[in-house]
Amino acid sequence: MPAPGSQFDRKSLFQRACRGESTDRAPVWMMRQAGRYLPEYRALRAKHSFLEVCKTPALAVEVSLQPFQALAMDAVIVFSDILVPAEAMGLPIHFGDGGPELPEKIRRREDVARLHDFDPERETRFLPDAIQQLCRALGPEVPVLGFAGAPWTLACYMVDGAGRDGFPETKRMLHAQPEVLRELLRRIAQNTARYLQAQFAAGASAVQLFDTWAGELSRDDYDAFALPALQQLTAALRPGDSPVIYYSKASSHLLESAARSGATVLSVDWRVDMAELRASLLAATGREWPLQGNVDPHALYGSELSIRAAVQAALAQTGGRAHVLNLGHGILPDVPVESARAFIHAGQQRLENAAVGAAERA
Amino acid sequence: MPAPGSQFDRKSLFQRACRGESTDRAPVWMMRQAGRYLPEYRALRAKHSFLEVCKTPALAVEVSLQPFQALAMDAVIVFSDILVPAEAMGLPIHFGDGGPELPEKIRRREDVARLHDFDPERETRFLPDAIQQLCRALGPEVPVLGFAGAPWTLACYMVDGAGRDGFPETKRMLHAQPEVLRELLRRIAQNTARYLQAQFAAGASAVQLFDTWAGELSRDDYDAFALPALQQLTAALRPGDSPVIYYSKASSHLLESAARSGATVLSVDWRVDMAELRASLLAATGREWPLQGNVDPHALYGSELSIRAAVQAALAQTGGRAHVLNLGHGILPDVPVESARAFIHAGQQRLENAAVGAAERA
Repeated sequence: MPAPGSQFDRKSLFQRACRGESTDRAPVWMMRQAGRYLPEYRALRAKHSFLEVCKTPALAVEVSLQPFQALAMDAVIVFSDILVPAEAMGLPIHFGDGGPELPEKIRRREDVARLHDFDPERETRFLPDAIQQLCRALGPEVPVLGFAGAPWTLACYMVDGAGRDGFPETKRMLHAQPEVLRELLRRIAQNTARYLQAQFAAGASAVQLFDTWAGELSRDDYDAFALPALQQLTAALRPGDSPVIYYSKASSHLLESAARSGATVLSVDWRVDMAELRASLLAATGREWPLQGNVDPHALYGSELSIRAAVQAALAQTGGRAHVLNLGHGILPDVPVESARAFIHAGQQRLENAAVGAAERA
Repeated sequence: MPAPGSQFDRKSLFQRACRGESTDRAPVWMMRQAGRYLPEYRALRAKHSFLEVCKTPALAVEVSLQPFQALAMDAVIVFSDILVPAEAMGLPIHFGDGGPELPEKIRRREDVARLHDFDPERETRFLPDAIQQLCRALGPEVPVLGFAGAPWTLACYMVDGAGRDGFPETKRMLHAQPEVLRELLRRIAQNTARYLQAQFAAGASAVQLFDTWAGELSRDDYDAFALPALQQLTAALRPGDSPVIYYSKASSHLLESAARSGATVLSVDWRVDMAELRASLLAATGREWPLQGNVDPHALYGSELSIRAAVQAALAQTGGRAHVLNLGHGILPDVPVESARAFIHAGQQRLENAAVGAAERA
């Protein structure tokens, strides 16, 4: 396929930003960019179920490429779901209108013991296959991102059995059976490490860990439960040159702990002032942290002018330095494609200007 | 009625803590303490609908007193709902199994213009009546608390029409019709001020503003929308000696702004370290702030020993000084009454010891 707007090396731009090296501008992509706001996605999903798309590399590749073909963002994330490893560990999953449901919930020590340690090269082969095919389709200058749920967030679904306000059963386990939760988190981390290794081996330029529900925890509980599992996971990955982006929502109270997770980049939402965060992490860790974020997805309900202002406000927090521009959560399904385009274009503007400048100089 | 354990002046204890004066121990109560975890509440609700209880002073008084009779906490909050003023402003409300629904949503300037400015002394008379009857029943030594939703949180329900993840329509209004949202917030603040004045006039010792959904906002958006409406409201109240407790959930990123709201006490959840908050507010405002909170309601799923540890951890954050001990959100409906009792007793322990000490000295 012709890579749209492929006049520059997006992979290098993305990886440099993740490593904190200087770049002409911040690279930009959107969480859930392969999704319902795109008519071509809705058309494909009318013919295939969610899990069918996840598990059929040709379909996963097609929907992963749709946003890139339409909007030419700077990274392509493989289409999948954070619950894929939960199913591979032995918990059946149903995707209904009310979101995912896991009828076989984890509630006791024996439930954890029964979990299956899966081989991602074989049992979730469809995912590395999709990543390989994406890399081939996109060529060497577009980064392909893999991902997984972070252990705490995956545990929330495995224990509560669905997305539930405050995840009361997972919290009950934390308070009433802390050792069972620790063992569950250990098993998830162990399996997720291999799952992400397979994604790197297939060609992923970076992986993102989604810790969507980290914000439910106090800092003490995060440090005692979520963080050790993250550390176990990243130690098994040894990221080195391969960035691990750690996304957590509504977690401004946890980010100094998250900086000890072993991740390369912290991905934050609109509740975080990235200038303040960078300053406090510099004081705590002695280095300037690469950050990803943080425009409120609801800002894309505004006019093109106000979307541009939201992008500029986010970039102003970091000076565009060591910054992967993104939304603070997934793009909403009813956002007009034109508004998504305005977001991406506003993010890429500095480079366009720079490219014009380079052309004028040439 | 005989006030259980009425050997000391709970009202004085509560008001001193709210004013930041020294006390023998922190007073303790629980958000949603009149609720489904109590069998006597469930028995009454089996015979009367939620709104019927809210609007019938004798019933509201009965359920407000139930937790005090069972657990002898240090304050009694009147039973009501934050949506009562929304209904009084002209929006019908249905309480179904999926939570409250407001079918006539606010979406345009004309919807705001149609809202009714209500007279709380007449149109929601049942609430000051219930507060008066509670004060009579409890006598001068037990504080009765009134409450209302904060303007932003009430606007979320009035625009989205129900509790919805992220309140997308309210956010859409913020980004696409900011002046309409500002006008809505102004109208809510104006009506809420009178509504709370009527509660103070009826005998409330303090009122709590519930800003449950403040945490959905970035600090910039909070400062631009939620905060001015709060300031308008508290300016109209002129609290003086009557404490205004401002509760916000998942809002650690907003609390320095909340300190400019005009409230007397900031009520926070388990995501906030109250020692750090107090230090940062001291630096920002030059004074030691009275705080309320902040035990995770899920901690009441643990053993009596772990509940006691959670209470002690919360009290350790403030040294019990200028601190109203509470949960960080409402008590959960499936918490055993014994666990609620363990929470209250652990909070009151220091006084019991002090009282024993005083008796020995006498």
